[in-house]
Amino acid sequence: MVEDRRPTLQTVAARAAVSKQTVSNALNSPHLVRPDTLDRVLGAVAELGYRPHAAARQLRTSRSHVVALRLEPTADGISGAVLDRFLHALTEQAQLRGYRVMLFTARDDAAEIAQYGELVDELRVDGVVLTSTHRGDPRTHWLAEHGVPFVTFGRPWRPDGGMDLSPAAAHAWVDVDGATGTRAAVEHLLALGHRRIAYVGWPAGSDTGEDRRGGWVRAMLAAGTVPDGELESLWLGVPDGAGAGAEAAEHLLATAAPTAFVCASDSLALGALAAARSTADAARSGVLPAVVGFDDTPVARAVGLTSVAQPLTEAADRVLGLLLGQLTGGSTGPDLDIADRQVLLCPNLVVRASSAHRTPPP
Amino acid sequence: MVEDRRPTLQTVAARAAVSKQTVSNALNSPHLVRPDTLDRVLGAVAELGYRPHAAARQLRTSRSHVVALRLEPTADGISGAVLDRFLHALTEQAQLRGYRVMLFTARDDAAEIAQYGELVDELRVDGVVLTSTHRGDPRTHWLAEHGVPFVTFGRPWRPDGGMDLSPAAAHAWVDVDGATGTRAAVEHLLALGHRRIAYVGWPAGSDTGEDRRGGWVRAMLAAGTVPDGELESLWLGVPDGAGAGAEAAEHLLATAAPTAFVCASDSLALGALAAARSTADAARSGVLPAVVGFDDTPVARAVGLTSVAQPLTEAADRVLGLLLGQLTGGSTGPDLDIADRQVLLCPNLVVRASSAHRTPPP
Repeated sequence: MVEDRRPTLQTVAARAAVSKQTVSNALNSPHLVRPDTLDRVLGAVAELGYRPHAAARQLRTSRSHVVALRLEPTADGISGAVLDRFLHALTEQAQLRGYRVMLFTARDDAAEIAQYGELVDELRVDGVVLTSTHRGDPRTHWLAEHGVPFVTFGRPWRPDGGMDLSPAAAHAWVDVDGATGTRAAVEHLLALGHRRIAYVGWPAGSDTGEDRRGGWVRAMLAAGTVPDGELESLWLGVPDGAGAGAEAAEHLLATAAPTAFVCASDSLALGALAAARSTADAARSGVLPAVVGFDDTPVARAVGLTSVAQPLTEAADRVLGLLLGQLTGGSTGPDLDIADRQVLLCPNLVVRASSAHRTPPP
Repeated sequence: MVEDRRPTLQTVAARAAVSKQTVSNALNSPHLVRPDTLDRVLGAVAELGYRPHAAARQLRTSRSHVVALRLEPTADGISGAVLDRFLHALTEQAQLRGYRVMLFTARDDAAEIAQYGELVDELRVDGVVLTSTHRGDPRTHWLAEHGVPFVTFGRPWRPDGGMDLSPAAAHAWVDVDGATGTRAAVEHLLALGHRRIAYVGWPAGSDTGEDRRGGWVRAMLAAGTVPDGELESLWLGVPDGAGAGAEAAEHLLATAAPTAFVCASDSLALGALAAARSTADAARSGVLPAVVGFDDTPVARAVGLTSVAQPLTEAADRVLGLLLGQLTGGSTGPDLDIADRQVLLCPNLVVRASSAHRTPPP
């Protein structure tokens, strides 16, 4: 084997007479390094022509066949387990392709970015799968700048909440179309005869939440079963959880007389189910408002809750397809048609007892 | 650096004129290799003094700081998410110690074993965390024989269902004492005044299930509120799930008149809750049987179900402590007192509305 003379983190460190950690800090967290040291390190980087991260990857004689994924903290909510189900699908799909998944944790975006260099250089991770994309996401910009192959499960969001279509956000991604899911829920309830269909969602500021609420808004405007001006009184945004969902549904039942609910999560829907039952009991009416949740969690199956199911196995399959395309030949790089590396999947409505026979009162 | 001349998988393969995969097969799955090839490979192994796996580890100049964990297939049940919560805790606790978690999947024990060699040799995993230990578990024997550091989350089980205390099972493990959990549930219900406390569990054959049922049996025998001979009529074993739990609870209510239920899982308990409500509705009695679940899942919190909580963060912490002890100095090896490397943790009862004020009818 011919010796490779390209500069490494080690040769830069030796030239600048500092530790490898200091070189890494100078490149990734320059505020941690004293100004004179920073000058010396950056001088050595320029002199040797060192290219961080890319250098380490080019030196490799073989791939590690490992992809990295940040594991989010355990979510107490019922819907928090959706990312766990994505992880299961990703691990299984990766193994079918000869890849494994390396997990790490980070308390915020900055900590996550600080780990990418180490993961890619030291642990020889071939690429990264990101979840929980959000407005002004600094992680994707960092990965793109440093030439690390990555795909996000989650679309890039603009600071104003729309989808970010700027060149800086032109990376490969896979997401599930939440608006199509809530629209399908509304159309299912309209077909059962419901006209006043309420929405229990999250407070403003959640991109995923605005996406899901948008589907309800557009479907209701299209149906015209409620005067446009009344739509605002038919929804509430509350923190995720069965308790908050129950309170929101009770409030809506008392103030806006809906006969059905579409909810942004199964947790909220579980609360709406309880509120629907206690209201029907109190009125001795026997007519239960219909309820639809989101995410088709095990709880939905257990209690017979109609819910919108994300195609998580397909999402994992498409994420890995896009990532491995980058690793094995750049076929999903910026040169590829944008439609082939930005994938919006359709969710499915799973109808169960919480809506199936719950028609509105005559 | 002095060149290390100890034999590797590669030098054995070269000497025997076969691929590395064939050497690996000869050592781990000899039935896959033709007899003459097997002879030639084993001859080269003996001639060179190659020690599989241990050789690769000894050659390392540094540790990878990666531990491997098999991810089980996604469980549809509500309690299946317990291992996901353990994974979150393990990843977080590992990162605090400078370690990361590498995931893989396997459809059975043999496939899992086939992967360990590759994980340890090629991907330089330092050690393994095993879950879902069971009777006659071949995985722990293989890892022990091949000198791979490992700790199980789950105790070793004897073929007859008891705890395996043989030398072959004398590895480091951490488990949660299920029997103590169901005993605490029974004692909580006794303190509320219940005397006929039924048990809804799993069919015979589940070690975890027998452990949990054993706690109910012993607590009931100790209390003496039901004649010993009637105990058998107060329990049923059914497949996990809310539907099966509801049927079992209905059957027990009709045949054995219990006033409270202890269940082996939150899924079963969710069914028992529904059966309790519909029975009380039918009898217009207003007296609801008390229900206790197991695993304190998000569903339990959402619906107000009393449940037995496993200390998963502590379990992950103890598992990593035992594993890193092996990696950094053998302090948890067979020479260590057995009590210090076999840890049975106590679960906690979390009391909620499904039992808190549900006293038996006067």
